[in-house]
Amino acid sequence: MPYSLVTGGAGFIGAHVARSLLSSGKQVIVLDDLSGGFKENVPEKAIFIEGTILDHELLQKLFNEYEIEYVYHLAAYAAEGLSHFIKRFNYSNNLTGSVNLINESVKHKVKCFVFTSSIATYGALPPPMREDMTPEPEDPYGIAKLAVEMDLKVSHEMFGLDYVIFRPHNVYGEYQNLGDRYRNVVGIFMNQLMQGNPLTVFGDGSQTRAFTYVGDIAPIIANCVDHKECYGEVFNIGADKEYTVKELANAVIDAMGMKSELRFLDARNEVVHAHSDHSKIKKIFGEYSKTSLEEGLKGMVGWAKATGAKKSSKFENIEITEKLPPVWLED
Amino acid sequence: MPYSLVTGGAGFIGAHVARSLLSSGKQVIVLDDLSGGFKENVPEKAIFIEGTILDHELLQKLFNEYEIEYVYHLAAYAAEGLSHFIKRFNYSNNLTGSVNLINESVKHKVKCFVFTSSIATYGALPPPMREDMTPEPEDPYGIAKLAVEMDLKVSHEMFGLDYVIFRPHNVYGEYQNLGDRYRNVVGIFMNQLMQGNPLTVFGDGSQTRAFTYVGDIAPIIANCVDHKECYGEVFNIGADKEYTVKELANAVIDAMGMKSELRFLDARNEVVHAHSDHSKIKKIFGEYSKTSLEEGLKGMVGWAKATGAKKSSKFENIEITEKLPPVWLED
Ligand SMILES: NC(=O)c1ccc[n+]([C@@H]2O[C@H](COP(=O)([O-])OP(=O)(O)OC[C@H]3O[C@@H](n4cnc5c(N)ncnc54)[C@H](O)[C@@H]3O)[C@@H](O)[C@H]2O)c1
Ligand SMILES: NC(=O)c1ccc[n+]([C@@H]2O[C@H](COP(=O)([O-])OP(=O)(O)OC[C@H]3O[C@@H](n4cnc5c(N)ncnc54)[C@H](O)[C@@H]3O)[C@@H](O)[C@H]2O)c1
Repeated sequence: MPYSLVTGGAGFIGAHVARSLLSSGKQVIVLDDLSGGFKENVPEKAIFIEGTILDHELLQKLFNEYEIEYVYHLAAYAAEGLSHFIKRFNYSNNLTGSVNLINESVKHKVKCFVFTSSIATYGALPPPMREDMTPEPEDPYGIAKLAVEMDLKVSHEMFGLDYVIFRPHNVYGEYQNLGDRYRNVVGIFMNQLMQGNPLTVFGDGSQTRAFTYVGDIAPIIANCVDHKECYGEVFNIGADKEYTVKELANAVIDAMGMKSELRFLDARNEVVHAHSDHSKIKKIFGEYSKTSLEEGLKGMVGWAKATGAKKSSKFENIEITEKLPPVWLED
Repeated sequence: MPYSLVTGGAGFIGAHVARSLLSSGKQVIVLDDLSGGFKENVPEKAIFIEGTILDHELLQKLFNEYEIEYVYHLAAYAAEGLSHFIKRFNYSNNLTGSVNLINESVKHKVKCFVFTSSIATYGALPPPMREDMTPEPEDPYGIAKLAVEMDLKVSHEMFGLDYVIFRPHNVYGEYQNLGDRYRNVVGIFMNQLMQGNPLTVFGDGSQTRAFTYVGDIAPIIANCVDHKECYGEVFNIGADKEYTVKELANAVIDAMGMKSELRFLDARNEVVHAHSDHSKIKKIFGEYSKTSLEEGLKGMVGWAKATGAKKSSKFENIEITEKLPPVWLED
């Protein structure tokens, strides 16, 4: 039986996608360099290969050894705000790494290449973002994602590679990396609570996001390859209801059943309001976003408490330090 | 006195830009890895450093050692048609390499970063291409150029880096690499004539391009930093008059004063008609495109005959061979 390859499957969303695939009876290979994921997240039934998508010789070997039918490409370093300061790393890891996978997928005639892009491709366009808007990314992370989207389009035209692109936003839930100070606000808040620290909020916390429960979207990402009408298309995917970051902080405090304070930091250069229109994906998959923030947080809290606080490590190779938010330099 | 850094200054356009700068009394450093350029092209008065923009430690040393005021970033591998087949190389060399330079330019507060993008960013949009059209690149080369443009915009917003972007097209003239089988149709024709080979034409040769004499555009690229109204802007630059590739072949045969035949190859996947609107740049620099194709070819022929035919070498690390035009595999 051929395999589905999940890159980044030791990470947060990838761990869920791998599980969805296994539960539909697929054979799964996870490729992950554990730079942002954990071996414990990889489901037992999957074949796990520790390695990086930057290693194109490893990829060649992998595609020669296994018959790979579908590629789910989730591996990336998704620290949007940090990407200004680690441009080189961002473009190599997130773009060149992706292109290595596209090369092998073309050569081995993969049936469909599923890519998790991001709402970051839209930048500061007026929300709600729709797929027919012209993307205007505001940071290197969004630019790299958009470049991969464009390369997929061109690879389809030139070589016939089929693909499906998702632009998720603000996903949270079990297996999220709690120890990354640069991203995943829900995970950061839970970690800060477990460490007895105040919750850090950039600006006044009035920026809004629609927080998306991973369990609502992972099965769609996994199953899209069975829907030919998805091929060659780009889909927003995520929740509809918006919350301010301040509201989120209070909801996390409630869900954790703990007390804490908010620590307001200088606003950083970020998009203030970001939410997407999801009518396109709903036409195919119906009303998929069913989990309320309260329910979703409850599920995640159970897991987070079992996992425990993580030391929030620093990214080692910052390329530009000018304008780096000072909180990111704290110990 | 501070320096102007010209990357790719041992290459074709860069050699002219370096000369323009020197003749306006600037001090020039040329950085080039000689992958597509020649040491003989570097003007004597320039400081020449052999090295690649992928070596970010070298760049750090260079920017620490010299006070660099302006960066003219021309280094790239500009083989548009080949870029489908060398995606990884294309994105690392043309995007990550550029980003290394942007990083140093931000850190060292360079006054202006001049970048030669390409008409390839537009893809197959209906000509004439105007700067206010939304780019839709059709190949990895165009995608990488567009991503650099976007990163410059973001680097300006985040760090205040000033920049000027040019989108030249189909430039020809003295110092053009005659030995690259994958690009530079004028150079390829001259080389084939000098080797006594027929001139190879993809398809029926009815695709049109507006061939641009390098001497008309290099001084503008060099001097744009003195025009503040250019900062933060994107400019098409090139000639207005279109020729079919077949007409070009005959014009080159005439200019060389030789006889030859045309060898028609299968059409490749390329944009059929590409020419740009130049009203934006003319508002600032006036009617700059003054050299007729006949005159321009005459100048180039003198140089090409003095230089002699070059062996047309093959690119060694082709990543995908499927759909590669067979002529590119010939010895
Ligand atoms: N979480 C979100 O809100 C969100 C939103 C939009 C898009 N995305 C995208 O979804 C995907 C998954 O994100 P996530 O939130 O699960 O992040 P994550 O960090 O939990 O998962 C990414 C995984 O990729 C791995 N990885 C990173 N670089 C790698 C490399 N070079 N080679 C091999 N493995 C590598 C990491 O170790 C990690 O396990 C990413 O592509 C991300 O950009 C996520
Ligand atoms: N010639 C055209 O018609 C045309 C059209 C549009 C855009 N451009 C752009 O103009 C610029 C110059 O093009 P050209 O026609 O003079 O090409 P060229 O190949 O003659 O010059 C490019 C130079 O860059 C050098 N180079 C390549 N990779 C390098 C690296 N990693 N580090 C250091 N040096 C490196 C090469 O050795 C070469 O000397 C390129 O950026 C190209 O994309 C050219």
